[in-house]
Amino acid sequence: MSDTLGVARPRLDAPEKVTGATRFAADGYVHGLLHARPVLATEPHARIRGFDTDATLAVPGVVAVLSAADLPLAGTGTDRTSEPLAREEVVFAGQPVALVVAETEAAAEDGAELLVVDYEPLEAVVDVEAAMEPGAALARTVEDSDDEGGDLESVHGQVDKGQEDDAGEQLSGNVLDRVTREQGDVAAAFAASDAVVEATFRTPWVYQAYIEPQVCTAWLEPSGTLVVSTSTQGSFVTRRELARAFDLPLDRVRVIAEPLGGAFGGKFALVEPLAVGAALALQRPVRLVLTRSEDFAATNPASAQVTHLKVAARADGTLTAIEARMIVDRGTNAGWGVEGATSLLVAGPYRWQAHDLRGYGVQTNRFTFGAYRAPGAPTAAFALESLLDELARELDLDPIELRLKNAVVEGDVGVSGNPFPTIGAVEVLERLREHPLWAQRNSLPDGEAVGMAAGHWPGAMEPASAVCRVDADGTMTVVTSVADMSGVNSGFAVIAAAAFGLPPEQVRVVTADTASAPYAGASGGSKVTYTVGPAVIRAAEAAREKLLAAAAQELEIAPGDLEVVDGVVRAVGAPDRSMTVQEVASKALRFGGRYEPIEGHGGSAQTSGAPSVAAHLSHVRVDRQTGEVTVLRHVIAQDVGRALNPALVEGQMRGGAVQGIGWALFEQLDHDEDGRLLTGSFLDYAIPTAERVPEIDTLIVEVPAPDGPFGAKGIGEAPVVGAPAAVANAVARAAGTRLYELPMTPPRVWQALRS
Amino acid sequence: MSDTLGVARPRLDAPEKVTGATRFAADGYVHGLLHARPVLATEPHARIRGFDTDATLAVPGVVAVLSAADLPLAGTGTDRTSEPLAREEVVFAGQPVALVVAETEAAAEDGAELLVVDYEPLEAVVDVEAAMEPGAALARTVEDSDDEGGDLESVHGQVDKGQEDDAGEQLSGNVLDRVTREQGDVAAAFAASDAVVEATFRTPWVYQAYIEPQVCTAWLEPSGTLVVSTSTQGSFVTRRELARAFDLPLDRVRVIAEPLGGAFGGKFALVEPLAVGAALALQRPVRLVLTRSEDFAATNPASAQVTHLKVAARADGTLTAIEARMIVDRGTNAGWGVEGATSLLVAGPYRWQAHDLRGYGVQTNRFTFGAYRAPGAPTAAFALESLLDELARELDLDPIELRLKNAVVEGDVGVSGNPFPTIGAVEVLERLREHPLWAQRNSLPDGEAVGMAAGHWPGAMEPASAVCRVDADGTMTVVTSVADMSGVNSGFAVIAAAAFGLPPEQVRVVTADTASAPYAGASGGSKVTYTVGPAVIRAAEAAREKLLAAAAQELEIAPGDLEVVDGVVRAVGAPDRSMTVQEVASKALRFGGRYEPIEGHGGSAQTSGAPSVAAHLSHVRVDRQTGEVTVLRHVIAQDVGRALNPALVEGQMRGGAVQGIGWALFEQLDHDEDGRLLTGSFLDYAIPTAERVPEIDTLIVEVPAPDGPFGAKGIGEAPVVGAPAAVANAVARAAGTRLYELPMTPPRVWQALRS
Repeated sequence: MSDTLGVARPRLDAPEKVTGATRFAADGYVHGLLHARPVLATEPHARIRGFDTDATLAVPGVVAVLSAADLPLAGTGTDRTSEPLAREEVVFAGQPVALVVAETEAAAEDGAELLVVDYEPLEAVVDVEAAMEPGAALARTVEDSDDEGGDLESVHGQVDKGQEDDAGEQLSGNVLDRVTREQGDVAAAFAASDAVVEATFRTPWVYQAYIEPQVCTAWLEPSGTLVVSTSTQGSFVTRRELARAFDLPLDRVRVIAEPLGGAFGGKFALVEPLAVGAALALQRPVRLVLTRSEDFAATNPASAQVTHLKVAARADGTLTAIEARMIVDRGTNAGWGVEGATSLLVAGPYRWQAHDLRGYGVQTNRFTFGAYRAPGAPTAAFALESLLDELARELDLDPIELRLKNAVVEGDVGVSGNPFPTIGAVEVLERLREHPLWAQRNSLPDGEAVGMAAGHWPGAMEPASAVCRVDADGTMTVVTSVADMSGVNSGFAVIAAAAFGLPPEQVRVVTADTASAPYAGASGGSKVTYTVGPAVIRAAEAAREKLLAAAAQELEIAPGDLEVVDGVVRAVGAPDRSMTVQEVASKALRFGGRYEPIEGHGGSAQTSGAPSVAAHLSHVRVDRQTGEVTVLRHVIAQDVGRALNPALVEGQMRGGAVQGIGWALFEQLDHDEDGRLLTGSFLDYAIPTAERVPEIDTLIVEVPAPDGPFGAKGIGEAPVVGAPAAVANAVARAAGTRLYELPMTPPRVWQALRS
Repeated sequence: MSDTLGVARPRLDAPEKVTGATRFAADGYVHGLLHARPVLATEPHARIRGFDTDATLAVPGVVAVLSAADLPLAGTGTDRTSEPLAREEVVFAGQPVALVVAETEAAAEDGAELLVVDYEPLEAVVDVEAAMEPGAALARTVEDSDDEGGDLESVHGQVDKGQEDDAGEQLSGNVLDRVTREQGDVAAAFAASDAVVEATFRTPWVYQAYIEPQVCTAWLEPSGTLVVSTSTQGSFVTRRELARAFDLPLDRVRVIAEPLGGAFGGKFALVEPLAVGAALALQRPVRLVLTRSEDFAATNPASAQVTHLKVAARADGTLTAIEARMIVDRGTNAGWGVEGATSLLVAGPYRWQAHDLRGYGVQTNRFTFGAYRAPGAPTAAFALESLLDELARELDLDPIELRLKNAVVEGDVGVSGNPFPTIGAVEVLERLREHPLWAQRNSLPDGEAVGMAAGHWPGAMEPASAVCRVDADGTMTVVTSVADMSGVNSGFAVIAAAAFGLPPEQVRVVTADTASAPYAGASGGSKVTYTVGPAVIRAAEAAREKLLAAAAQELEIAPGDLEVVDGVVRAVGAPDRSMTVQEVASKALRFGGRYEPIEGHGGSAQTSGAPSVAAHLSHVRVDRQTGEVTVLRHVIAQDVGRALNPALVEGQMRGGAVQGIGWALFEQLDHDEDGRLLTGSFLDYAIPTAERVPEIDTLIVEVPAPDGPFGAKGIGEAPVVGAPAAVANAVARAAGTRLYELPMTPPRVWQALRS
């Protein structure tokens, strides 16, 4: 086992991916396939008067033009799954209003271009703050009469909503949700503090920018079973959502989670209802592959936020009070919002004496927002960690020391009201402090600086199960329903190998579909390794029991006196009395065999979270002439519990840091003042390309999670959280002035330098 | 549970099958599919000099002509899996010698017709008795140099081979196998008996006559995984055989057992190597669908047998000695034979004082034989039960009483040397005796008679496993790898429902493929319900434990005080304190759920067999003018252990009886004296059509199998065993003369009446 865990190994899917052998959801051939092309609203807010379909239907090969009324939808909910095509009311420019379905992709595209939609424009709500004011125009005028509603919130959140809000504020009907968390006398705490800082922070809509645009193929088997082959983060949740939206029995829907070409939170039952609705309406297989422009315009990016934050400390650096008013632009996502998460996470992994945290979910006519790696966290950390640096500056304290002084440890009660479980905030900050770059920060050339910031992600939980099966050749198959995102399957392989006693290269992992797979939730929330991993361990242990029972009879040694090492069952202390796993398995898996198959099932239901903390150093240069910021070097230290496969762990850390640099410097989905998207392609929307990404040092910190598989935690989200703030803190030092809005583009930096 | 077991229910797959919705192996669409047409040898024994492929390759659409050398076979074995196309030597007329592969079925057919094969004829061995003589020509001249060989025998048999044979006999090289079972002084026992009868019995080659001819589609995924979609009785055995034949790692082969259109023992890795070999050679998807004529000529029917049998009894009917010399025509199946099984089963479910049983597996240039429902048993029972009637006649004893006097009970040592486990021979015979038809037998019109006979099948065993999963809607999915033959899936549904506590209609059964399925052996040997059933029970029980653990917390009642009835978990004695299974499951299967998924895995490894005995009454009329035999009525009594679903049990009993009537009266694969098939279509090969099948009474006898699921036994094979003998005994009485050869066609009966 010592050779199994903690060893850097390639991802299991790497050979297939780098040789182009992986079949993604757009690659499968389906006989009689029709191709759908969505027609996207050109108006941000409008009533649909009607469609002129004549020219479209005249295109050879066009089979149908479908509007919302043509899809066999069950209810009248306004979440994207329930309303995949706008009914009477368009609520954002980019919203699908029709599908043109044709025998070829080209015909569908030609037909879509010719479709005429007659809109009656309505007033567009694009300013999220103005939208909150009493009397503001509403972003949606038709009420959702469907109580069933979308419940994708349950996938992402069920975040504690804090106390009932006091309702003292007068707000418009665009405010869909208010979250309030109060504890202690905040005013008194501010008054008794030695330093108080406050500011308003703004972050834009940010696109997940997965490599593979969203895609789904749906068809009906002759038996009536609906099969959905899709690029999704969760097969069971997609099945549930589709069954709900189209009022189908669960077992009539079979969802196949195909290999993912990236997702980052964005792939949840968004295009599936379009393909499924068309397939059900036309009784033929239908595929929808979004173009990149459609994916920019019609999907569910991270929400823009406005955060008013005020924090204070005593002279010794002890944090006292925090007050936040956080406005989350939900676009038209009536189903759920991140105001709960962001108003929780804005307190960071720190102790406070008093807090007053409010979150507002506000609808506007921009997108429908969705999840994006650590939803609500980077923007919260950007605000908090910026102000912590301001406090350190005012109090003349070392920024890391300030944070260390206040970092939570296990048992500290957070703003959620619950005590923190095991958490590595102190360890991560201490580790970061040791990095040479931190010592070098005061001896850098003019225009350069090092900033630091921390961030954490609490980690989600969901029951899960897994099966382990040993074949007659002595190799093992791990079966789950988990969409292999961020290399989790490769983690399962080492987990199973270690728990069973096989070399990891003799373990493969299969993602089965919803017809037969063990249950697991969607890949997201940094929960897969943490919650499915223990199920894999138990499945491997159950299989190992079968192995030992059989080997005990063959070797005439009690099972308790046997061990399994590297694929060999042997007597403890007498390793020459042994059989290979292959020998045992092949004796069981045959006609007349006398031993049960070497298989096992394991389940898990974590009830204790495992937050991961990551802290960053970012070394930047600010060009005072142009305002351009260059990240010269970046360091990330993260508590991962236990690095099952350091290569994959470092990949997540680097990937998170890079996406955080994107938030910091490049990425923003921008609308014009009427609510039309200005940045609908990679020509307009900048992401950190290889040449803009510096060397990134990764410092793995291991504070084992008591309930994690071999101590491991979910690590996918934490590394992005603090990265934008670290870059911002570096820029503030290098430029001598702070920016409160992301991304820190050259014009903005240039302007800040001049102001 | 009382409402679950023992209730007649439709098969789960009935609606799909009767509405034509089932997708069989020939129905799936595969992109870029090529179609293969086999070229069958026209010579029964020959050397292939070469092929003239010019005309074939000139057919538009023909892609390739493949001979054995073109297939990437690993070894030089001569079993049909290892040698799917004849190498240098043709050993039966009908053996595939080449595949023509084309873009369309029509082109492949045209190409196949134009292929010229240059044969050098060799002497054909067609008389199985002559073939045994020292100095006889050999049916195969090239030796199998491959020690690995085929091991399909392990699927069918591992029947105890008895003692080493004495090798006293001089036999030719065509004798591939000799089985000897001796115990006691046979000669002395015969000498001390009051009646001794003997005769030689002949049974022909018999075709399985499944509705769906053999079919397989094979393709390579871009990843290199070979996918095999096929009509097979066993996915894992097919995977193993293909991996062996083509030297592939097990996990490179994924076998999908598609819904079966009948099999009866004939569908085991026979066409798969052809489709796979072509797909590997051409790197394109290939489908092979045998035509009915090809299926007749090129597959693996039940072997012809010649049985010399001698039995004796004392005046009181006590059986004394049995001596058999049983010659099994293996055709060219060098891999395995039924001489072991038939020489065991010829002793019937009876006690003997002494026995000398010999079996010979002999090669000829006819077919390669395969398994057919109770391999070797009907022909053994035909011989034994005919002579038992002769003994009864000579000793003036009632035939049923004679059998009852000698019927084995649990603990009696059989000719295998092992004691019989629980067996219902006495119960079945007693039940049959009560049927009114037996009382009527002496008051029938001239030319009519009732005959009776018994037969048994020991039942095979193989370790197996299964998974049960409860979905959020409270329904259950049972996952196995079992090919659904004879309605076993429908049996699993009631087994799981009873073990868990759900209504059976809320249970579905999924056959997963080898990539992810729990292990189970092939469907055959009457072992599926008996061996997989307990795995299903344990899986359901394991899932039930999860259910009770969760419900216990929700209801605040100890799990031990809960019961599950009809989908409701309730307190024992306080049924109003309850939750539905759906309520519990939906609390577990969601984000933030606190209970493990309601799932379980179960394994089984039966080590004690559960033989099933079936006895028949057959009421026939013999037309003395034409020799035509009409079965007027038929009764079957069978010990099924426990009738989980009486409708399916009766279906098996009726089906077995009907196939037995086919053996008795109609079915024979006949060759001309040169070894060329004369009966290669349903025009020449008669099976019992609906108008020839009488009313069949089914008497279900339940002698529970201690280790069977709820007492159930495997029941698929026993009902065919004694049926031909029962008809033969009826014909012997009605005609006043006995026939020793099957089928009892009008010419044969007419001749017997005249002799």
